Amino acid sequence: MMTFEQFMQHYKQETENCMKNAIVATNSDQKLEQSMIYSLEAGGKRIRPLLVLATIIAYGREPELGYQTAAAMEMIHTYSLIHDDLPAMDNDDYRRGKLTNHKVYGEATAILAGDALLTKAFEMIVSDVTLTATIKVDLIQLFAKNAGANGMVGGQQADILGENRTLSLSELESIHRRKTGALLSASVLSGAIIAGASEDDKKVLEKFAHHIGIAFQICDDILDVIGDAQKMGKKTGADSELQKSTYPALLSLEGAKQALAEHTDLAKQALGTLDIDATFLLGLTDLIAVRDF
Amino acid sequence: MMTFEQFMQHYKQETENCMKNAIVATNSDQKLEQSMIYSLEAGGKRIRPLLVLATIIAYGREPELGYQTAAAMEMIHTYSLIHDDLPAMDNDDYRRGKLTNHKVYGEATAILAGDALLTKAFEMIVSDVTLTATIKVDLIQLFAKNAGANGMVGGQQADILGENRTLSLSELESIHRRKTGALLSASVLSGAIIAGASEDDKKVLEKFAHHIGIAFQICDDILDVIGDAQKMGKKTGADSELQKSTYPALLSLEGAKQALAEHTDLAKQALGTLDIDATFLLGLTDLIAVRDF
Repeated sequence: MMTFEQFMQHYKQETENCMKNAIVATNSDQKLEQSMIYSLEAGGKRIRPLLVLATIIAYGREPELGYQTAAAMEMIHTYSLIHDDLPAMDNDDYRRGKLTNHKVYGEATAILAGDALLTKAFEMIVSDVTLTATIKVDLIQLFAKNAGANGMVGGQQADILGENRTLSLSELESIHRRKTGALLSASVLSGAIIAGASEDDKKVLEKFAHHIGIAFQICDDILDVIGDAQKMGKKTGADSELQKSTYPALLSLEGAKQALAEHTDLAKQALGTLDIDATFLLGLTDLIAVRDF
Repeated sequence: MMTFEQFMQHYKQETENCMKNAIVATNSDQKLEQSMIYSLEAGGKRIRPLLVLATIIAYGREPELGYQTAAAMEMIHTYSLIHDDLPAMDNDDYRRGKLTNHKVYGEATAILAGDALLTKAFEMIVSDVTLTATIKVDLIQLFAKNAGANGMVGGQQADILGENRTLSLSELESIHRRKTGALLSASVLSGAIIAGASEDDKKVLEKFAHHIGIAFQICDDILDVIGDAQKMGKKTGADSELQKSTYPALLSLEGAKQALAEHTDLAKQALGTLDIDATFLLGLTDLIAVRDF
């Protein structure tokens, strides 16, 4: 049996190989290809693909069944970062300590690289030879719903409109449920679809994903207040500069830490009710919720 | 039997209803939704959806089977126009006589509206209750290939990189084969997939689509030289301002007109070899190739 560390390292690498091979195989315009690979290789913990694969493993199925789905999920996440960093959006020059895509390749190519990655993500799923047509259709339904106007893109829009005014806690949760929660949820549920989990199990996993989604965002907000810019690889204090509502601003720092602990507990409790080997999912929960502060 | 005029009017309306209903049903952020609908309703001849439906009708199948696919195709086309018009790309203030999306809703929302429309297009196909899972997978494979880095997005990238230098005729064709041809081709072939056309027929239809794709672009280039700005609803002479290579620039105006006639003939010849009722496909070919000049 793998340790959690081995799980992380091995499947992070598999996901990264799968992504790069898929882009290189398209044999498209060179600058566009380089730009896509640049952002895919910009690092990160690959939490979304690892959630896909940890869920499949929890049901005792072969993780290989989820490689292309895991890679597709990371491509969608990456496209959203490229577009969010654009001058017209968050206008960020750095991400994870590297120049953002548009700073290196220019805005036009960055927009197109994002478009191409989103399109490629759907192609990754339909071209997966290990899955049935029905499973592919279910996965694309899930991806499109969670990544689109009612999910991630809608959340980003609401986030932009919410700048410069104070949001209520429920408004804040509604934004983050879509902006970051939707994709984390789609990661867990796509693993469940591939593993053939029951509808009852999927409901519990959705609850688990809901709580880790909020925990993830609270953690991000706390780090933005107290984190170390070098460790984050981007500027901190950005939220208060933009007068964005955050959990610490609404709940105080202590209140935010307490909410984080509560959501982490609720996530773990949900997992505890399922008849699965949740080892790696629990490990990822801690990774999401317990960071350096 | 419908006349070609009736065909155009009826199915244009059906496509537009289908698109609008799909967006309104998502119940997403209001500004984002308005922005998506604004560009979907900005008009145009709806050539791509009409190609989908004309192909299905040519095989004697029910056009209703193609409504969501036709709408999805127009959504992909519309997203590409929104992103192409952005200041970082072609920087256009007007399209079809109306302000472009970012001029009305701002750049951030325009980028997100494009992202959401692309995502929605895939959702339209998987959520279509009239198609089998296998057909849906084939359609998404076709869409993703033709709209992505190797198709439309790659063509737009090559088009940007090709500005300010003289291209050869084969470079110019390679750009347009991807930038506009790929989506026209995907329209015809998605109709063929839904209608259950044979592999041999699909090859002929691909040839047909190839020639109408080139005819379409030559026509656009000619209109840019001699067209009337008011009739086009956008500024003309834009290509020569950007020092873009065009068919008239490479072949002379007369040469471009001759090439247009040749590609139109080759498209019609291809159709003539198939055992189908090509009436509406021939009508669309004339619509694409014979415009006011």
